[in-house]
Amino acid sequence: MTKAVVLLSGGLDSATTLAIARDRGYECYALSIDYAQRHGAELVAAERVARSTGACEHRIVRVDLAAFGGSALTDASIAVPTEGIKAGIPVTYVPARNTIMLSLALAWAEVLGSYDIFIGVNAVDYSGYPDCRPEYIAAFEQMANLATKAAIEGNRLSIHAPLISLSKAEIIRQGILLGVDYGLTVSCYQADAAGLACGVCDSCRLRRAGFTAAEVPDPTRYRASL
Amino acid sequence: MTKAVVLLSGGLDSATTLAIARDRGYECYALSIDYAQRHGAELVAAERVARSTGACEHRIVRVDLAAFGGSALTDASIAVPTEGIKAGIPVTYVPARNTIMLSLALAWAEVLGSYDIFIGVNAVDYSGYPDCRPEYIAAFEQMANLATKAAIEGNRLSIHAPLISLSKAEIIRQGILLGVDYGLTVSCYQADAAGLACGVCDSCRLRRAGFTAAEVPDPTRYRASL
Repeated sequence: MTKAVVLLSGGLDSATTLAIARDRGYECYALSIDYAQRHGAELVAAERVARSTGACEHRIVRVDLAAFGGSALTDASIAVPTEGIKAGIPVTYVPARNTIMLSLALAWAEVLGSYDIFIGVNAVDYSGYPDCRPEYIAAFEQMANLATKAAIEGNRLSIHAPLISLSKAEIIRQGILLGVDYGLTVSCYQADAAGLACGVCDSCRLRRAGFTAAEVPDPTRYRASL
Repeated sequence: MTKAVVLLSGGLDSATTLAIARDRGYECYALSIDYAQRHGAELVAAERVARSTGACEHRIVRVDLAAFGGSALTDASIAVPTEGIKAGIPVTYVPARNTIMLSLALAWAEVLGSYDIFIGVNAVDYSGYPDCRPEYIAAFEQMANLATKAAIEGNRLSIHAPLISLSKAEIIRQGILLGVDYGLTVSCYQADAAGLACGVCDSCRLRRAGFTAAEVPDPTRYRASL
């Protein structure tokens, strides 16, 4: 069976990506990054999702991006916006996050002898993040193919971003077909320790609108105050 | 003053790189990565070097590459070779290490508002590492210029690798001219806690041959057993 490393945040998109990778016949090694994110509950969710979606292994690697700050997700003094989605790059953007995560996936892939990395980035519903665009993914793939011993030995590494051109509703419909239990996932940027969602951050809004557009009941557990 | 992030391992090459960046007029933010490397003494050296070479700030960020293993530097069960330098990629190669380090430097650069990253890679004396080649550095730079908010806003980020085509002797001569105190640096892959070098690993051999070729006294502190 061909091995793949799948970046798994514990949110809706990465859970769907893991299900897609498994459906394509890969033996899936799920990798979560504990980057000192505000919403640590997503790592607990990642563990549940890895188990329920049939990952053969799940690792959590810690890298302290709070040492740099610069994002509402890594600096407690910057509030998560809750007034609705605006144009431009939001303060929840974490500098170089996908580059760091893909780099760590690349390291594990090389140790495993895997030439396939999956990441659940999506350019449609969230075009505000520079590192979710197809041209970025292509450039990372090109760099990765010069970076490793495996590449020098003639193996071609692929970065798969199967959700990149899908809407949130399309992602959800595809996940439902593949049996993803979205009740296990946590997308909220300020989920509490129990994984309950705020309902008003950009991530909650996009997720909720996705379930509505997909005409699928929203299994998200919101806080009682909503 | 223009800010630069300088990757600083604590070894000879990165100390020289820091001195070059400072000499070119940059305000230098030194970044060391604690990746659970066998030779943790290099991080202590990095702190000394950052101070003595005039970095305005020095941060150590931890990322546990021992979670993946696959290298003599991150897996205690793989011995560091001591029989002399051989052809091919050595077992001291750490999968995706430079990609991970440059990614972290990219994150800090973006938070600082810096568009210049320095790394002390060298393709001449150590062509065995894939991520020390000019084509790799160029591909990383291209990727980085698609990855960040700064790039989207039209700022051009540069990855500087000033040592890439120099021999070890040329690096040492340049460093001496710039006042680098190589007695503060640690290059040995299996330096002990006090920073004393083994003298027989590939890194020690390259370093010692460099001082000989540069006709500069070798200030390295070797273990008494040598």
